[in-house]
Amino acid sequence: MKITPPYLMFLGDAVDQLAAKTANGVAFWRPNWCLGQFRMKGCNADIGLPDMGLEEAAEKGVKTLVVGVANQGGYISEAWAETLLQAVDLGFDIASGLHASLASVPGLASAAREKGCQLFDVRHPGETFDVGRGHKRSGNRLLTVGTDTSVGKMFTTLAIEKEMRTRGANCTFRATGQTGIFIAGEGVSVDAVVADFISGSTEWLCPENDADHWDLIEGQGSIHHASYAGVTLGLIHGSQPDLLVVCHDPGRPHMRGTPSIPVHSLTDTIRACEQVARLTNPRVQTVGVSINTSNLSNADRERELKAAADETGLPALDPVKDGVAPIVDRILK
Amino acid sequence: MKITPPYLMFLGDAVDQLAAKTANGVAFWRPNWCLGQFRMKGCNADIGLPDMGLEEAAEKGVKTLVVGVANQGGYISEAWAETLLQAVDLGFDIASGLHASLASVPGLASAAREKGCQLFDVRHPGETFDVGRGHKRSGNRLLTVGTDTSVGKMFTTLAIEKEMRTRGANCTFRATGQTGIFIAGEGVSVDAVVADFISGSTEWLCPENDADHWDLIEGQGSIHHASYAGVTLGLIHGSQPDLLVVCHDPGRPHMRGTPSIPVHSLTDTIRACEQVARLTNPRVQTVGVSINTSNLSNADRERELKAAADETGLPALDPVKDGVAPIVDRILK
Repeated sequence: MKITPPYLMFLGDAVDQLAAKTANGVAFWRPNWCLGQFRMKGCNADIGLPDMGLEEAAEKGVKTLVVGVANQGGYISEAWAETLLQAVDLGFDIASGLHASLASVPGLASAAREKGCQLFDVRHPGETFDVGRGHKRSGNRLLTVGTDTSVGKMFTTLAIEKEMRTRGANCTFRATGQTGIFIAGEGVSVDAVVADFISGSTEWLCPENDADHWDLIEGQGSIHHASYAGVTLGLIHGSQPDLLVVCHDPGRPHMRGTPSIPVHSLTDTIRACEQVARLTNPRVQTVGVSINTSNLSNADRERELKAAADETGLPALDPVKDGVAPIVDRILK
Repeated sequence: MKITPPYLMFLGDAVDQLAAKTANGVAFWRPNWCLGQFRMKGCNADIGLPDMGLEEAAEKGVKTLVVGVANQGGYISEAWAETLLQAVDLGFDIASGLHASLASVPGLASAAREKGCQLFDVRHPGETFDVGRGHKRSGNRLLTVGTDTSVGKMFTTLAIEKEMRTRGANCTFRATGQTGIFIAGEGVSVDAVVADFISGSTEWLCPENDADHWDLIEGQGSIHHASYAGVTLGLIHGSQPDLLVVCHDPGRPHMRGTPSIPVHSLTDTIRACEQVARLTNPRVQTVGVSINTSNLSNADRERELKAAADETGLPALDPVKDGVAPIVDRILK
């Protein structure tokens, strides 16, 4: 599976800006790939790209229509069907991150076959995986982990990739979730694989590589999250990280979605992740803390970053406001 | 999904006795449900049940043909198709634990629909699950864990169920693998669910219950297994066990399937399992050690059991040879 840029970002009839979060993330990290946005009547999102119809997009060289919008239930709205069918008719591939598969749109799969277009359902891994084998692979690997879900693991990983590329390092961002897959053009939605293959699909995602190469692997969930820790553990075992970066959002009253379970400290999270990671890489270590300070005042922000650095003895920064240079210094040391 | 006994055990053209391991397990634990075995020409397995044709089975009241046989690749052999179609024609349900779905047999799904017969693919969970929520449920839960995969977790759990029932305790065996599901008539093949739903499907499997009720949950994998630890962790979080029983096979040179990873000690396994289990049940404790001593001399067997008891301070026994009474004493204390 390889999604071909450039993209036209389909926002459909998104109810609000948050519903277009995926499209927004792709446009932020891959501005050169995103030539325009397609908005239907009633769309309340705007990700700042030129509004563009399908025919104009075809003229401009767009290869893939990316359904980068979420709706209640993850289904494909009937209101979108006409546009999707027309896109295939014009020869676009379509990539979707919704739970429902593109083939659920009547006639779309057969039209795509006829036109030679690809339909990518990034939440439905098409590959068959082996179970994880656990033996050490050549090359270097960094994995982002978190004190909770949705605390900036993808953003931090991409910020590290960008900084490392600026410095000429040999590295690859490895996507494990839908937005990341659109950004990388490939990857595995690890939380959507069959449970037996979590670590195996991760091993497939970041295979043996050159001695100086870094796989920068997007983390998922949290080792202390009662809903998703199994995914996190398989991802840790399969990625056999040399280095971890731990991500944190100081504003959480409890683990997201599980009100009975408090957020663990940075220290506890680092200790737990390093402990389980040693199974497949005894030399694992943590090299930085990434904190989402977007909701904090300047004074609180400074206090939070200093407290995290003092607690862990590691560089602590907000990748949005500070960049990730001190972490990359440690990676390349 | 509820598989209806009594069963006719389909052994097909099993190449050897090991290929009929699943059928053997079902016949051992549910002798009253297994009225006969169906063997084709060339079958090299015999699980000790009366040989029985489909028509005789129908006369005797069999409700379900259980495909309790494994083959290389997990596909459904073309040689079996005629028998499976004939079974549906006679009104049997069919239950299979193979990787391939019963619907892959040409004509079987439509014949089943026509006859009103059910096709159960126990490796393909048909239910839709929520993600795990992590809050404490009423009732009591025991989970078997292991130092490795295939070390007797199902057997130990069923032995505990049998002993507890003998004593009149209110308990239910909860199956998480294919053989267990045939034995219980229901359950969830937890390693076959989508990764996001490991703990959620386990919560579904053992919901709120009476204050004196015990769910006895079949464990899977091992917290230290590089292939399957994610499944094990989600199962631990979702089952929120009050009690653990740890299972062990002293004959393993390394973790099964991962030659680079040694087997962890009982102490390390107990510590790791209790540590992660505390997330959803802070009061978890381990109450016994179950050891497969089938390959040991009497002297080695005694030494192994004594060493395990000394190391852990817990009752250590072989459930096949000793029964599990000392563990059940602790459960009901």
